[in-house]
Amino acid sequence: MSKVRVGIINVTGYIGMDLARLLYGHPEVDLISVTGRSAAGQRLGDIVPHLADINLEITTELDLVDLVFSALPHGENIETVVSLLEKDVRVVDISADFRLKDAAEYQKWYKQKHSAPDYLNRAVYGLTELNRDKIKNARLVANPGCYPTGAILALAPALKQSLVNPDIIFDSKSGASGAGRTLTLHTHYAELNENIAAYALEGHRHLPEIVQELTVISGKPTLYVTFVPHLVPMTRGILTTCYSSLIDGVLAGKKPQSEIMDIYKEFYAKEPFVRVVNTPPRTKQTWGSNICLIYPSIDIRTNRLIVISCIDNLVKGGAGQAIQNMNLMLGFPEKAGLESLPVYP
Amino acid sequence: MSKVRVGIINVTGYIGMDLARLLYGHPEVDLISVTGRSAAGQRLGDIVPHLADINLEITTELDLVDLVFSALPHGENIETVVSLLEKDVRVVDISADFRLKDAAEYQKWYKQKHSAPDYLNRAVYGLTELNRDKIKNARLVANPGCYPTGAILALAPALKQSLVNPDIIFDSKSGASGAGRTLTLHTHYAELNENIAAYALEGHRHLPEIVQELTVISGKPTLYVTFVPHLVPMTRGILTTCYSSLIDGVLAGKKPQSEIMDIYKEFYAKEPFVRVVNTPPRTKQTWGSNICLIYPSIDIRTNRLIVISCIDNLVKGGAGQAIQNMNLMLGFPEKAGLESLPVYP
Amino acid sequence: MSKVRVGIINVTGYIGMDLARLLYGHPEVDLISVTGRSAAGQRLGDIVPHLADINLEITTELDLVDLVFSALPHGENIETVVSLLEKDVRVVDISADFRLKDAAEYQKWYKQKHSAPDYLNRAVYGLTELNRDKIKNARLVANPGCYPTGAILALAPALKQSLVNPDIIFDSKSGASGAGRTLTLHTHYAELNENIAAYALEGHRHLPEIVQELTVISGKPTLYVTFVPHLVPMTRGILTTCYSSLIDGVLAGKKPQSEIMDIYKEFYAKEPFVRVVNTPPRTKQTWGSNICLIYPSIDIRTNRLIVISCIDNLVKGGAGQAIQNMNLMLGFPEKAGLESLPVYP
Amino acid sequence: MSKVRVGIINVTGYIGMDLARLLYGHPEVDLISVTGRSAAGQRLGDIVPHLADINLEITTELDLVDLVFSALPHGENIETVVSLLEKDVRVVDISADFRLKDAAEYQKWYKQKHSAPDYLNRAVYGLTELNRDKIKNARLVANPGCYPTGAILALAPALKQSLVNPDIIFDSKSGASGAGRTLTLHTHYAELNENIAAYALEGHRHLPEIVQELTVISGKPTLYVTFVPHLVPMTRGILTTCYSSLIDGVLAGKKPQSEIMDIYKEFYAKEPFVRVVNTPPRTKQTWGSNICLIYPSIDIRTNRLIVISCIDNLVKGGAGQAIQNMNLMLGFPEKAGLESLPVYP
Repeated sequence: MSKVRVGIINVTGYIGMDLARLLYGHPEVDLISVTGRSAAGQRLGDIVPHLADINLEITTELDLVDLVFSALPHGENIETVVSLLEKDVRVVDISADFRLKDAAEYQKWYKQKHSAPDYLNRAVYGLTELNRDKIKNARLVANPGCYPTGAILALAPALKQSLVNPDIIFDSKSGASGAGRTLTLHTHYAELNENIAAYALEGHRHLPEIVQELTVISGKPTLYVTFVPHLVPMTRGILTTCYSSLIDGVLAGKKPQSEIMDIYKEFYAKEPFVRVVNTPPRTKQTWGSNICLIYPSIDIRTNRLIVISCIDNLVKGGAGQAIQNMNLMLGFPEKAGLESLPVYP
Repeated sequence: MSKVRVGIINVTGYIGMDLARLLYGHPEVDLISVTGRSAAGQRLGDIVPHLADINLEITTELDLVDLVFSALPHGENIETVVSLLEKDVRVVDISADFRLKDAAEYQKWYKQKHSAPDYLNRAVYGLTELNRDKIKNARLVANPGCYPTGAILALAPALKQSLVNPDIIFDSKSGASGAGRTLTLHTHYAELNENIAAYALEGHRHLPEIVQELTVISGKPTLYVTFVPHLVPMTRGILTTCYSSLIDGVLAGKKPQSEIMDIYKEFYAKEPFVRVVNTPPRTKQTWGSNICLIYPSIDIRTNRLIVISCIDNLVKGGAGQAIQNMNLMLGFPEKAGLESLPVYP
Repeated sequence: MSKVRVGIINVTGYIGMDLARLLYGHPEVDLISVTGRSAAGQRLGDIVPHLADINLEITTELDLVDLVFSALPHGENIETVVSLLEKDVRVVDISADFRLKDAAEYQKWYKQKHSAPDYLNRAVYGLTELNRDKIKNARLVANPGCYPTGAILALAPALKQSLVNPDIIFDSKSGASGAGRTLTLHTHYAELNENIAAYALEGHRHLPEIVQELTVISGKPTLYVTFVPHLVPMTRGILTTCYSSLIDGVLAGKKPQSEIMDIYKEFYAKEPFVRVVNTPPRTKQTWGSNICLIYPSIDIRTNRLIVISCIDNLVKGGAGQAIQNMNLMLGFPEKAGLESLPVYP
Repeated sequence: MSKVRVGIINVTGYIGMDLARLLYGHPEVDLISVTGRSAAGQRLGDIVPHLADINLEITTELDLVDLVFSALPHGENIETVVSLLEKDVRVVDISADFRLKDAAEYQKWYKQKHSAPDYLNRAVYGLTELNRDKIKNARLVANPGCYPTGAILALAPALKQSLVNPDIIFDSKSGASGAGRTLTLHTHYAELNENIAAYALEGHRHLPEIVQELTVISGKPTLYVTFVPHLVPMTRGILTTCYSSLIDGVLAGKKPQSEIMDIYKEFYAKEPFVRVVNTPPRTKQTWGSNICLIYPSIDIRTNRLIVISCIDNLVKGGAGQAIQNMNLMLGFPEKAGLESLPVYP
């Protein structure tokens, strides 16, 4: 039986590349077409040598496929996605264009009017663990941002179970690949190695996405979320440290550390890609894989819940989750193509 | 005129080494004696090649000097320090032995009874900017821990001016040299590069030091401090991100960002080694130097104060501050020997 | 049909770990038993978290299996391997114990008498590309060292075709994982990052291995081989730069660069894991995979042949090549379990 | 007494920055003027925060000074330098414009006709240790390239003493700052970290410079020099491994290792910035300082001389050597402003 045909728009970005890498080993699909503007006309392996075994030419226009991963920069991406949907092609959109439900919020954070606001509510926010059923029937999945993936998974159990107050801080530490392949002084090797910095203190575009989804989970009208990302001298990986305070009386009279561990383990018990661990995780334990590691703990001196989550920003925070979503959309086993273990050390 | 003679106990640790490096260029003192147990009998330059220009042999016992930097591991250090003080030698103690004022707290965190509790109140906590006058007259200065230096300097202005509530979170990111020269799996290159982790979630020994000093500054009876350190794949540098919430009404009716910047700049206006900066600082901007960079900001969505501080953990967080304290104790200009600019990139 | 049962002796070293990682995805074998002295009694995932999906306990003794990967330190390993062979278990030996054919050479370089010299000639040197037929029938394969793999593959075509004089220099640059998981000051993060050094200038143990195999290939009585390894601040990867001089008249009257490229491409045309590339390769293009990238070039000013080779030292230079050899020994497709693409960036 | 006034043209490159850093601490000169095209009009500290203590504005035109460091890209630099010389201003030229004596060679390697060939022979090649006397009287010093500095110092003693044959290989490993501050994909963090590559195999522009100077030293008509640079995942530092073969009979009947060590130590005995060391050096032992570390050794199996040299490419390979040259030109002590020890780890 023939495999499902898939394509990647803008394969030369880091998430595009990692989609190609993972799809190469996927048992149910054939990657048959990849685009990339500046590199059109060249072999994929000439631009991205580690993918030389994928025997494809980079083109300007995508061939006819059944499902597309669109990894264009936000904005210019909208028209492309809408046009694919109109041709009845399923889309997993890697950009930020269909993540926010509110067109006004989109405009506020992305500084442009959304050109297809009707599609915002048809898109399913593709944080697989939280929206699995909707994703199964989606034509358009808005793949989450890398930071929101780690942040939301870390706090979803506590908010769902009403353990914590609505005051929340996410302190995230990301490797440089999250900033993409576009050259900047901040990601110039001599500037970044042996260096760490906080950035976007005035507000990062992933904040509204985090707030939107956590608000739904919590059922509360308002959450007070602070999100501070940091750029760390490493290539892959996001570690997010989440701080919130336990609601008075919660976990009272119990051993809080073992109690919170039980709650988290139960919440994610059936998840193939989320593992609640007994010791603080490290980002490299997720290198190249779709796993998310989560460690909840209670600071008994201050009654705060502290949760650490680790992901590979290009996989669970990008290409891997996109394929996980594709698997659901196409009725494949959720782990198909995503079974390789992390590469460590 | 002859220079003041100084010595270093345990020169082969990273702070010991950096003391030697900086003292080599100090115009007012002569480093005449260095000890180091395992390396005794060898030339300093054979053990630590970058210091080969310092023409000294590592010995078991220190020669007679006027002032000693003691960099022994905590505990075993106490007797040595007391014995020096009794011989009327001034001491800048790099260990944690004399930082906490309360012997019971010491015992709780360091798992041993303090053998010279009478000296705890004679020691001056050597965060220079906050205790300058006491340090000038001290015989024993307890040089602060690396994390507390960055944390306390970041929040001192806000607490002193009663801008924030007593709920405080310090999320710190440190390079590996802070863990010292002792070999561990976590600081093995293949394990640490391309990796980041939180640690000591159950409570780090620098926490009581932070709480003790911030409590004094704030004048409040109780602070609720959470401190989570992270190990980052870099060698030098600590970036601390501090979160607290503004007291209701504070900065109301003003431009909060420029207001907080003014308050911080005024607080540190005369400090030679603290610079309040207009954009988020990066740790490498402090590499090898005694500078502390501070950036305060207001998250207007949540009314939180967020302060970033950056130091070189081995300099302002160790050897540099120790020399800064020595300069005050001996009546030298505070910047003597500490004027080199950071090495960047 | 039941799969072939395999085991790993000393799974907690870096090559042991990577064997487990790769075998987890192998379609034809079941990893059913792993040993590791210090960690015996614990779950594999507790010691090596990225392997948590492999549901095995680390034991002291290996269960009955059909083929063993033995990754013990050299010397102590010999008895174990011999005992397995006597029980008719096939062995891929990761140690250096059976690589050298001459027991006297072994003793000279490894400072101990070889306790089973009769087995030296029964063992097949497992550089797969050069000894494929012998490996297919071997009971004992001596898996090559990491440096020899990259060095021999780089120069084999030129020596086989008598293009170069017997004066050869290998200048190799290796990541820290090649030095293993044992803690040393040289691989302590703060010592290695931002640092590079040459080592073993007096003679590295991989030299006799390189000389032995290249001599066979060349058919010359004596080769004059200099090998200088360097430790580079990275985790995985070996880049070897080989220098030799063209025999007078060789390639004369031709375009030397395209000629040498053709010769190399033809030599490796059918190899699944060696790719001769048109531009200088980079080690990260092999990260986590069994590929070896080779770039030959002619320095027309000096008539020298310069060949660059890149491998992942833990995969083609260790675990991957071991599995490639296992595949041949057991009659599986040579690429089985080794088809994942490199993880980049 | 007033200090000598100096200026830097193009302060915003890495060597320009390091000139400013080192000149700030120089006891005999005042840095009074700095230029930088794109950043003109801004404070130096706003563009390069670690230099904030230098209270200067970046300008388009240099103020009147006594000596200029010109760090413009090659080519466009020539006119500027000539114009300064005509105004009787001394120049230390950081670019490659006046290093080669032969205008035809310049044109061949730099792809443009030299616009002031008359100045080529007036310029002194500023490898201080070899041309000290000429530098003292020079009006124009051509500061050497980073690779040539390490390469020439490594082999000068052996060539001067006619120990080796004219076949020479330099295998150099450089950190990324050598490639400058201009953004490139090869120096993008995610591309360079955990990666190493050879480059410029077809011929690097520093080759003719090496050949020119070594030819003078050797007194031989022709040297056969191969030079292969490698880009290493680190910021500062060049390690060069030099290979040549001993002339038959040289060192015969002696202990070659101690003999070669003695020759090298004697050659550099009076040099303030070259240290011949007894164990292989590491680049980080030179971090931020003007020291060059050299380790000669004999491969007794092949009768080859192998020499390792380490420098900080931005200091001895750039800004530091430029200041060392300035000190000679202006009659200052050679170490003035260059006495700080390396920052390690």
